[in-house]
Amino acid sequence: MKNHQPIPTPQDQAAANRALKRQLPGRLLTDKDSRFRASLDNLRLSVMPNAVIRVQNPDDVGTVLRLATRYRIPLTSRGAGSSATGSAVPIRGGWVLDLTALNQIKIDRVARMATVGAGVVTADLQAQVEAQGLFYPPDPSSKKYATIGGNIACNAGGMRCVKYGVTRDYVLGLKGFFADGNPFTLGLPLKKYASGLNLRDLLIGSEGTLGVITSADLKLIPKPEKRWTGMFAFKSEAAALKAVVALFQAGLNPSILEFLDRQSVACAEQYTGKPVFAGQPRSAILLIELDGRPAEVRQQRKGLHTIMEGRAVAQREARTEAQAEKLWQVRRTCSQSMFSLADTKLNEDVVVPIEKQAELIRYTLVLKKEIGLATPTFGHAGDGNLHVHIMYNRASQADAEKAKVGIHKLMKKVVELGGVITGEHGIGLAKAPFMSLQHSPAEIAAMCAVKKALDPLGILNPGKIFEVFEVWDHELIDLRLPWDHR
Amino acid sequence: MKNHQPIPTPQDQAAANRALKRQLPGRLLTDKDSRFRASLDNLRLSVMPNAVIRVQNPDDVGTVLRLATRYRIPLTSRGAGSSATGSAVPIRGGWVLDLTALNQIKIDRVARMATVGAGVVTADLQAQVEAQGLFYPPDPSSKKYATIGGNIACNAGGMRCVKYGVTRDYVLGLKGFFADGNPFTLGLPLKKYASGLNLRDLLIGSEGTLGVITSADLKLIPKPEKRWTGMFAFKSEAAALKAVVALFQAGLNPSILEFLDRQSVACAEQYTGKPVFAGQPRSAILLIELDGRPAEVRQQRKGLHTIMEGRAVAQREARTEAQAEKLWQVRRTCSQSMFSLADTKLNEDVVVPIEKQAELIRYTLVLKKEIGLATPTFGHAGDGNLHVHIMYNRASQADAEKAKVGIHKLMKKVVELGGVITGEHGIGLAKAPFMSLQHSPAEIAAMCAVKKALDPLGILNPGKIFEVFEVWDHELIDLRLPWDHR
Repeated sequence: MKNHQPIPTPQDQAAANRALKRQLPGRLLTDKDSRFRASLDNLRLSVMPNAVIRVQNPDDVGTVLRLATRYRIPLTSRGAGSSATGSAVPIRGGWVLDLTALNQIKIDRVARMATVGAGVVTADLQAQVEAQGLFYPPDPSSKKYATIGGNIACNAGGMRCVKYGVTRDYVLGLKGFFADGNPFTLGLPLKKYASGLNLRDLLIGSEGTLGVITSADLKLIPKPEKRWTGMFAFKSEAAALKAVVALFQAGLNPSILEFLDRQSVACAEQYTGKPVFAGQPRSAILLIELDGRPAEVRQQRKGLHTIMEGRAVAQREARTEAQAEKLWQVRRTCSQSMFSLADTKLNEDVVVPIEKQAELIRYTLVLKKEIGLATPTFGHAGDGNLHVHIMYNRASQADAEKAKVGIHKLMKKVVELGGVITGEHGIGLAKAPFMSLQHSPAEIAAMCAVKKALDPLGILNPGKIFEVFEVWDHELIDLRLPWDHR
Repeated sequence: MKNHQPIPTPQDQAAANRALKRQLPGRLLTDKDSRFRASLDNLRLSVMPNAVIRVQNPDDVGTVLRLATRYRIPLTSRGAGSSATGSAVPIRGGWVLDLTALNQIKIDRVARMATVGAGVVTADLQAQVEAQGLFYPPDPSSKKYATIGGNIACNAGGMRCVKYGVTRDYVLGLKGFFADGNPFTLGLPLKKYASGLNLRDLLIGSEGTLGVITSADLKLIPKPEKRWTGMFAFKSEAAALKAVVALFQAGLNPSILEFLDRQSVACAEQYTGKPVFAGQPRSAILLIELDGRPAEVRQQRKGLHTIMEGRAVAQREARTEAQAEKLWQVRRTCSQSMFSLADTKLNEDVVVPIEKQAELIRYTLVLKKEIGLATPTFGHAGDGNLHVHIMYNRASQADAEKAKVGIHKLMKKVVELGGVITGEHGIGLAKAPFMSLQHSPAEIAAMCAVKKALDPLGILNPGKIFEVFEVWDHELIDLRLPWDHR
């Protein structure tokens, strides 16, 4: 996948901008502030686009793509920009397509489906859906900001995937436009669909490289009647992760199963000045949610306590929403407090088989010793999706070099364990160097052939997924983004 | 998608056969009986292949594909051959790849996953999985014969999709070979995976046109503890389908929700000589299964009865497995007894939105009048997937012509109603004439570009999906296949 990206001449870019202003008056923004805001995502690598286009309705996208095709303008689609991988960064310049105004929500209670614009914020959809007694489970941690379009672009996950699956599992239909500006309808708001090649799922997770999605038909399920949350402390990570295995062996079906290692918990305890569990400082922790009908939750809770007896050294239960919120605050504090270790956090959303998680945790400690940087880890233990963090100070060239070595070693280990280098963030720029660890040359060639089939001019989000990009060689921007807790 | 199919010369075909015999001794069958059995599927259109290759292990497939690429031999993969659409018919001759020997099953109870060969029979997998307290929900009606490879090739559905989804929803990873013989691993036995373009889901439902799948990692879920089955009679189809809507409005979540129209029920009653419901002959029927934990099933059952009161004119409940089996027998009898109307059945697995089902049923009666052929309809009312049957006598040229007109009209109506021409059978040959009703030229062009990207020589299951094929112009074979009830 080389060199078929467009590099428009300044003349072509100017002509394209003029044509766009003529065809879609009022959409093109070229002021520095707008361009800067569209120049970066949560990776904080900033590359200025030539202009930002604020889409007002789906058909605008077709017009933009026809012009982008005619003048060979690179086009990067964008929602909130909360991507962790740089996938929303316009590294070849050109146009950024801002889809946030496509924020319509239509809910069909009988069919249990919602049709939503690409710019709808995930948490907004969830609130509207739940008000109707229904449930949209995918819950990436950025859900208060992230858009459905972005969720689909990287096949976002979250905490409830252990029971409910990922974004892909809820997408029935997609509307949008191919690279040449022709509209597509891929799938429909129907529960079964077996007609033609499945381009719908090809586009899900393709990070804006194959087409531009303007709306999606999403599947909804009945809202669980009851939720129960419990937090359990363990002497060691191994003990906590053995409990995870035991829980599945016993047939339990938790809706959330989060794990926090001792490094993470120690950060939180240092930050707040008190132990999470009195008398059991620096424990490894499992945070568990059960949901369903009341009788089901009761039965599962009983089973859970049987398993935890003799394994957990302390526990706490939430009987109210407010108490549950307090337990979740522990998880959030762990995430924030890591910045007491260093100013920069590499957050790697790796996945390994459930029974290999203990081995991965052991390896994070080996790595910590080898590279001399903290490696606090927490994550979704119910699906083997652990967020391994490598903490370093950006100003230190030596630390940055160690972090770089660390991440390469980590990725190699993950693949060795039968895992995947990204479970919910996608590849973007940050993971591109590891593609060849995960996929064979034939697999990558097949992906590139498919990319070329759907985007022969290479105008859609060029430079992502397939080109090795060393984030390390670029300066990152230090600024506060809406979702930063710090 | 024209003319890039291979037409090997007899010399090339002979050379390919010789090379195959040398490289994989004992796999090549050229006797007439073996070739005849591989020449057809449930569509009963027979086209003889040059030879059948009985794969003994996955690597054989790579060898076969390398030779097929070298000599440009058309290659049609095959499991049980229960496809309803002709997708397993080798209409360009060449080789048929028989994958039924790839029948290994490996179950991981903790991870809740199974790794299964493409040749595993779906019901065999289900039995093994259920013995371990787990559940693999997809249940195409051919499950006692159909293979997992075939299920994946057409993204098979079945009765439990209303609650549990289709085959695609359970596929985590695929192993197999690209057209050029290079092996692939697409996805892994992990619950989250966001690396690279999603070729896994592109291959699911692609009917063997993009690659050959040799094994799959499948997701399993906890086995429901309890099941309850009930059957309800209604004065009209409209009343039954209104009850379906009411049931979803009330938040119920049935695991099966089958509908039988009065034409279907009348067939069964004529066949058995007694009414399904005494005193209520020729009713429309809903067959409903609830599953889950006992308390959940009890609660749902109560809700269901509240809805059915005043809507259903009669009802029957199963309290034991044997009683439930009797209720299911009604459904099966409907299917068999239709052959009392005529000797040939067109079974169209169309899908329309839930609330449009009553309109579709009204249309089947308009159609019945217009074409003068019976149109008994039953199916999966929980996901709008109704099997509309058009019954005709094959010997009558006039009737065949009427059936042909009828199916075209039906497909047009389905698309008008916002539906899809196939929900679980796929396109194959039989639905190919209707692709342009469902998909725009740009969508079809994109599918063809993707097909060409992954199979540039056009050797994989050539002639399917994209080429208009008039089944009517071909003679069908009258023979008994293993899954025939008649």
